[in-house]
Amino acid sequence: MTEDVFLADLLGRLPAADSSIIVPPGDDCAALDLGGEGLLLLAVDQVVGDKHYLPEDTSPEAVGRKLLARNLSDVAAMGGTPTHCLVASATSPGCGGDWLARFFDGILEMANAHGVQMVGGDLACAPSDNVASLTILGRVLRERVLLRSGARPGDVLLATGTFGESFVTEHHLFFEPRCREGVWLADSGIPTAMMDVSDGLLLDASRVCKASGVSLLLDCPSIPRRRAETTLSQALSDGEDYELLLAVPSHAAAKLLADWPFDDVLLTRIGRFVERGDGLVLDEGGQVLPVEGYDHLDGTRP
Amino acid sequence: MTEDVFLADLLGRLPAADSSIIVPPGDDCAALDLGGEGLLLLAVDQVVGDKHYLPEDTSPEAVGRKLLARNLSDVAAMGGTPTHCLVASATSPGCGGDWLARFFDGILEMANAHGVQMVGGDLACAPSDNVASLTILGRVLRERVLLRSGARPGDVLLATGTFGESFVTEHHLFFEPRCREGVWLADSGIPTAMMDVSDGLLLDASRVCKASGVSLLLDCPSIPRRRAETTLSQALSDGEDYELLLAVPSHAAAKLLADWPFDDVLLTRIGRFVERGDGLVLDEGGQVLPVEGYDHLDGTRP
Repeated sequence: MTEDVFLADLLGRLPAADSSIIVPPGDDCAALDLGGEGLLLLAVDQVVGDKHYLPEDTSPEAVGRKLLARNLSDVAAMGGTPTHCLVASATSPGCGGDWLARFFDGILEMANAHGVQMVGGDLACAPSDNVASLTILGRVLRERVLLRSGARPGDVLLATGTFGESFVTEHHLFFEPRCREGVWLADSGIPTAMMDVSDGLLLDASRVCKASGVSLLLDCPSIPRRRAETTLSQALSDGEDYELLLAVPSHAAAKLLADWPFDDVLLTRIGRFVERGDGLVLDEGGQVLPVEGYDHLDGTRP
Repeated sequence: MTEDVFLADLLGRLPAADSSIIVPPGDDCAALDLGGEGLLLLAVDQVVGDKHYLPEDTSPEAVGRKLLARNLSDVAAMGGTPTHCLVASATSPGCGGDWLARFFDGILEMANAHGVQMVGGDLACAPSDNVASLTILGRVLRERVLLRSGARPGDVLLATGTFGESFVTEHHLFFEPRCREGVWLADSGIPTAMMDVSDGLLLDASRVCKASGVSLLLDCPSIPRRRAETTLSQALSDGEDYELLLAVPSHAAAKLLADWPFDDVLLTRIGRFVERGDGLVLDEGGQVLPVEGYDHLDGTRP
């Protein structure tokens, strides 16, 4: 069973959302209207030793940095600004107070850089594994929030950055979450949908398609790859890119690309959404691309 | 190093709280003013297999129930009402989709009973352990929120329920968090401080003392014990009672006890705060009671 299948079943068993829940679980963040200015964004993400990083090769600071950065990417994907976080850690007997202090150093340095305040935590020990989770809070104006479900036939697909070989390059540890880019894109008022790529470009693009009830013609040769030697397959399926995918009305794409103010981050047109309700991703020749990506529930590729 | 020492150091390294943070981390919940009605309460807590429950003896539903109930107890201790939660789970290879579905059943049944909406989650697999964390959101009126730090010399200490032998009686799995009692107490406007007992009556009472800058004369014989055979030592130090401790001005205690509307839950006077700034807990004879309780950071008694 994949995470998507399990979550779809789980979400189907939830009671009806109350009126505070503007964006229910299933997107990069949930969004609540608690009566203040704008919406409260909420998401939770984990890092698990030997799953999301190799304990022997990864400094505790890098583990903490990655944990927060993954969550920042989720807020960025909604067009939001991160504000507060809570951290829970269960550490193995081999990781004592020094490991834990350095792990929190990694979180705090990243938190300070993004103006995020840590407002809660829980510390436990685990028999043998290292597991940490972080809940992120953010805010976004209601008229600016971007969901996965807004892509329309005819919209083009844009992507920030480059794809593939995230693990071998250590991009998965030291990536810069696209916070400023996400806010700029939301403020432009132009994108119709957005999400971040954590589980692979192809799998996450297919999630936009399914949520929006459209399909996608992916222009594979135009996908920017992380390195010269990165293969198309790696760019499509490696995952942990933490880049943004966004849908944009075709008439507005040229202006958005021309106005893009971030010289150090690519913004590239890589596809076009089409009116086909089965949520498939097709290549330029119309062949269905088989979806592969990391499945976090069973630790394998589905 | 104990969790308290580690957290005190960590909190000292946090940047200055921004104006949104009304109650900083260190209490049962943090409290934020995000501009809506009242304050947003936030806390996170974990359950770890072989630390907080015995996997072979505990149903997945009971694990999920306990995870949410622990967090509900934190909201109750602030006088708040729980509203939303997010769940992260990292499950071992031996716990597949069926285990996970039943674990979420346990959460959802408790959530429905308390009007809590689940708005986010993350699923991962771990190499060998089972770790789950839950972030709870709640709300409380600003003039009603109860902290650990408000106890004053002369206040009496009241406690809900009974203490000791939480594990052998399975109270630690099936306790009822004192949500309605916490709200009733906050609404009375009478208590000056409140917290919940998770790490042992003595350790948690000493935390109220330290936060309030007072000491406590504990009337040990009056402490209600869970069973007839429960010893005083068990009542003082076993932990996982999930009862409420509250400080009340002595002139108001009799009326509060008389007005207590919950026939199925004890409310008992068990001590008196005194003007002595070293935050000690003393018995009726003035002897210092050595603090013992479960330390979640290293899994031992400090």
